[in-house]
Parts: sequence; C-alpha cells; structure tokens
Amino acid sequence: MSSSLYQVLKEIKPMDVEAMKTAQTRQDELTKPRGSLGRLEELSIKMAGIKDKVISGFEHKAIITMAADHGVVNDEVSLYPQEVTRQMVFNFLAGGAAINVLARLVGARVVIVDMGVIGGFEPHPGLICKMIDFGTKDMTKGPAMTKEQALDSIQAGIEVIEGEIAKGLDIVGTGDMGIGNTTASSAICTAITGDLVENVTGYGAGLSDRQRAHKIEMIKQALELNKPDSKDPIDVLSKVGGFEIGGLAGVMLGAAAHRIPVVIDGFISGAAALIATELAPLLKNYLIAAHLSAESGHKRLLEYLGLVPLLNLGMRLGEGTGAVLGMAIVEAGVKTLNEMATFAGAGVSRNKKDSLS
Amino acid sequence: MSSSLYQVLKEIKPMDVEAMKTAQTRQDELTKPRGSLGRLEELSIKMAGIKDKVISGFEHKAIITMAADHGVVNDEVSLYPQEVTRQMVFNFLAGGAAINVLARLVGARVVIVDMGVIGGFEPHPGLICKMIDFGTKDMTKGPAMTKEQALDSIQAGIEVIEGEIAKGLDIVGTGDMGIGNTTASSAICTAITGDLVENVTGYGAGLSDRQRAHKIEMIKQALELNKPDSKDPIDVLSKVGGFEIGGLAGVMLGAAAHRIPVVIDGFISGAAALIATELAPLLKNYLIAAHLSAESGHKRLLEYLGLVPLLNLGMRLGEGTGAVLGMAIVEAGVKTLNEMATFAGAGVSRNKKDSLS
Repeated sequence: MSSSLYQVLKEIKPMDVEAMKTAQTRQDELTKPRGSLGRLEELSIKMAGIKDKVISGFEHKAIITMAADHGVVNDEVSLYPQEVTRQMVFNFLAGGAAINVLARLVGARVVIVDMGVIGGFEPHPGLICKMIDFGTKDMTKGPAMTKEQALDSIQAGIEVIEGEIAKGLDIVGTGDMGIGNTTASSAICTAITGDLVENVTGYGAGLSDRQRAHKIEMIKQALELNKPDSKDPIDVLSKVGGFEIGGLAGVMLGAAAHRIPVVIDGFISGAAALIATELAPLLKNYLIAAHLSAESGHKRLLEYLGLVPLLNLGMRLGEGTGAVLGMAIVEAGVKTLNEMATFAGAGVSRNKKDSLS
Repeated sequence: MSSSLYQVLKEIKPMDVEAMKTAQTRQDELTKPRGSLGRLEELSIKMAGIKDKVISGFEHKAIITMAADHGVVNDEVSLYPQEVTRQMVFNFLAGGAAINVLARLVGARVVIVDMGVIGGFEPHPGLICKMIDFGTKDMTKGPAMTKEQALDSIQAGIEVIEGEIAKGLDIVGTGDMGIGNTTASSAICTAITGDLVENVTGYGAGLSDRQRAHKIEMIKQALELNKPDSKDPIDVLSKVGGFEIGGLAGVMLGAAAHRIPVVIDGFISGAAALIATELAPLLKNYLIAAHLSAESGHKRLLEYLGLVPLLNLGMRLGEGTGAVLGMAIVEAGVKTLNEMATFAGAGVSRNKKDSLS
C-alpha cells in the first residue's frame, strides 16, 4: 500500500540542520582552500541535510521518465506527430534513447512509466503502467483532465517512487516524454507564477517564430477559457496540465517524504515542481535543478522556485537527460566530502587565516 | 626517445573536416530534435575532428597533475606556506586529494609529476620526476627561470604525455599544484594578452582585498623589471612563469601532435594554454575548457583563447578537479553520438521540417 497524498504532504520535513553543520565542519577540514570546490561543497552539505547525516555516496540511482500524450497537439503546437510519444517509449525500452545512454554512463537505472500514452502498450517488464487516460483533452476547448484524474496522476507518481524506494533508491532524477508538453508546462508556469505567456513560452522541439506565436495564442486561449486558480495547484494541473506532469509532481513529493533528493530535469520537470512545491513548500529543499534548459521559460521558472541550475549546456531534450548529468555532479560533491583527506590526516599545513579561526 | 618541441609543433594539424561532417550527419539521424543535446553534440563533433573519425568512447583517460614551487611566494602573494606544495604531492600519492576522489569517480588515472618542488622526493612508483630546479626564482627580483629551463620544462611535458600515450591514452586532462602559481599565471596572462594586471588577478586561495592589491603590485613589479616579450612565449614563460606551467604547455602540445583531446582545468592550465597556443595556434582546436574558475582572471583568459567553458560550479581548486568533471561531459557527448538509436533504426517519426530537408 502506497502513501496517500495527504500522508506524503505531512511527512515532508525541514532539512536536518545539525547534519548540515557536521558536513560544513568536515568540508573545512579537507585538504583544499575553504570553499574552493564551490557548488560541490554546497551539494554535499545539502545532501547531509536531506539524508539526516553525512553520506558516503549513492548506491542506487534512478531516473524516472514519465510519458503521456496531450490533446493540445491538435492545435499545431508541435512540429512532431503525436505518435512520437509512443514510439519514443519503445525506444526507451530498447535502450536506444539519449537517457538510456547517459544513465548507463552514470550508473543509474531508467524507470519508464506510461502515464497516458495514446495507443497504450502490451505488458513489458521494463514498463510501469499507470495510464490515467489515452492522453489529455485539448485545453483550448476545456479542461485537460478532471480533478480526479489530476489527483490520480499525482497518486500514481507516489506509487511509482515508493515502489522504487522498496527496490533500493538513494537519489532520483525526473524525466518526461510527451509531444505537446512544453505547451502544457508554459501554461502551468503562467498560471502559477503570474508571468506573461510570452516570457515562459519557447520554441519547444524547434518551432519557427510564427509557430511559436501561434503556440502562445493557444496557451492564452486555454488560460482564458479555463481560468485556472493560481492558489489551487490541483486546479491548475487539471485545467492545463498533463498526466506525466502530475505523475512527476507525485514522484517529487513522495521522494521528499522519504528524504530522497530529487534532481529535476528541464522545463517539464520544472512545471511539475511548480505544482508540487505549491502543495508542499518544504519540498524545495529536496530539489536540485540539474541544468538550465535552452527552452526560454525555464530560467524564469527556476528563479521562481529559487533554484540555481548546476549545468548550462544548451540542452533541451527532456527524458531526464539533464537530470542524469546533474546527478553525476551531486555524486562528485558527496564523494569529495566523504573520501578526501583532512589537513590533520594528511599532514598538510593550513593557511594562516584558517588556523587562526 | 620523445619528440622534440620543433617536431611536435610541425605535427599539430587542423581538424579532420570530413570526420566532423560524418559526426554531424549522424547527430541529425539520432532520435531527438536536432541540436537538442546542445554542447554534447558540439563536443561529439569536435572529438571526431580531433580523432580523425567518429569514436565510440574513451577507454584510457588520464589527468596529468604537475607540481612546482614559485620563488615569488617570498613576496607574500599567498596565504599558504610554501611547504604545502610538497605536502599536497604526498596527499596525491596517498589518494586523498580532491583530484584523486573525482578521477576515481570518472575512471581516469591520475599522473603526478614533480616539475620542481622544493625539498624533492624519494623515488615513488606513482611519481614522475621531471624536476627542473627546486622552485623558480623570485620574479620580482629577476627572471623566474633561464630560457633553457623554460624549454626544458616544455620538453619534460612532451616526454610525460608521450610516456602516457605509450601506456594507452584517449583523452587527457591537465592539473596543477604550486603555491604562488596564480601569481605567475596572472603575470603570463598580462604579458600575452596585454590586459591590465588588475583584470586578470584574483584572490587565489583566499586573499583579502588588501592582500590582493599587494599581489597586483608584485606582478606589476615583475613585469616592469623583466619586460617579457609578448611575441615570444618562451621569453614570457622564463621571465614570469613556472615549471609546472611550462610542463603543462608541453603536455598540451604533445597531446595535440598525437591527436589526443586535452581538457584544460582552470586558471593555471589556462596560462599554460596561452604559452602553448602562442607557439602553435592550431592547438586551440584540441583544447576543451572544462570550467570557469572562480579565479577572476580566468574569464578573460578563456575569451582570449576563444574557448567557452563547459561548467561553472564556482570551483577554484586546481589539481585538475575541473578538468576531470569536464572530461565526464565530453564522454557523455561521445557516448550519445555513438550509442543512440537513429530515427530509421528505432522506427520513430521525424518532424515535418527534418523530413523535408
């Protein structure tokens, strides 16, 4: 039996400040000038706060990639045909997508979840089926999904993450696949942050300026018609969201309830984080922004979340490809804290300032 | 017998444009929107240009960390006592430094080279001795080294890299250890780029504003006294350089002559790259800037070299710690190009724009 959303929300606790102090003290004893490992140090301290203690590494790493279709693709918001969502799930299962390659390199398992892909799938040992419906409805004509479906998608995410925790999990990254899902994410971003649609809508998988202008119009139309309540993240998710976005919000919340750090990928994972952090503001402490996506709305979204991305490599693929690279950086931080020698242990002299303090 | 500097300079050839075209064509066939892996794609194409062909990965990876002392520490340009250079070499050999930890994570071997550490070392299986002298002379009183020593240090670097190539080497990263070596690097940077000392001089391992102002004065004094010839990189290296900086320049040149990509670390490796690219401008194509150091001069140095750093994690430790993380990103680029499925192979539909082109 997995936890309910309400149990999970209650279970998300603040960082362990004592563990963070212990980590900081150890950082200052290591054979390097103080602070000279920059964000690696910050990450190692954050991990101690999340995990309740200074940890030695991540034995079990996973990327959870959730796929679903979007009714809004009927409005020509994407260059790719809708069947690519399903085709890419097969590519994930065959190990041929970018996320498979990068996860192998980093030693993370890839967990593929069908949250609502049109056409569905035969049972497959590598695929978790949490299908809510065969894609969302067209949000320019009405709500993308019912409130019940929105809650079900979050609950499905909680079930998936708790299932992975049962198998062994020390850190998780999020990923997505869904033709049309930058459109839903931009709509969520405007609904929650109050920013202009123009500021949070990019070129997706390669739109022209004219096509982007049309996409912006479609998002405005959806927001005007559905009037999502910015104070109610379930309302926002149901009116302009997606099943994979709800699922990823559930993954994030469930992970934080179990004190598992979550490396979030790009724009779609960011939209899921907006929904999830509105439900549980303390979740922010458990999130690591892996990278700054080339998708233009991502920068404003991360600023709203108060997260500073680790990488900026011009990536905009989704799937969890940014998250898995970010996870490698987090691991580098944890390993240096745990495995480096101390000044005293290695017989290295400290500088005058440090030895006085 | 290792190659001479003059042989090496002749052997550095342009990129293989045909191999780069082949890599670009393959990138455009992979199951992702064109360009959506950002700099990973750029790196994979650059590697093909360097290696003469599309490669499948890096079997042998190494970080070469060179250590030497600097006479200019007599002028109070560093917070750390000079003996830390030697102590840190022992820490490298014991596997307790940050570079050891990060190299283990990335699967790279660490090659430690004594280029001229005061006190010297007993023979050690993990230490290559290329000692030029027990530290440089104080550059505020005269040249840091003779021209012969400058050439010897570069030659030593060529010998080290050719020795590593003989053991098996597909990509190399550079690293440094030497109390006082940001001072030498800032002086080299001003001498070669013509930038103001103030613009290329930072806080090293943690100076105060007052201490940094003193460091700037010492660099100005050294430049005024020695008048290095900006058109003669050997003159610059001899007057205001360091043995590890000359050694790293030799490593870079020797690697490029054998078409081995070089991931350069931070500010000190950057100063070595300035010397080396003045000798062989084509070398720039073989260099990958791993990260932007928190050391303030590094940004201007990389702009002068025309290199865009991969990472910006606020690191300023040296040793090769940035290079080894950058190497992991380069590997991610190569692996995605080599291992991802194509649209045709995976049965994934292309977008309208791509299929028309």
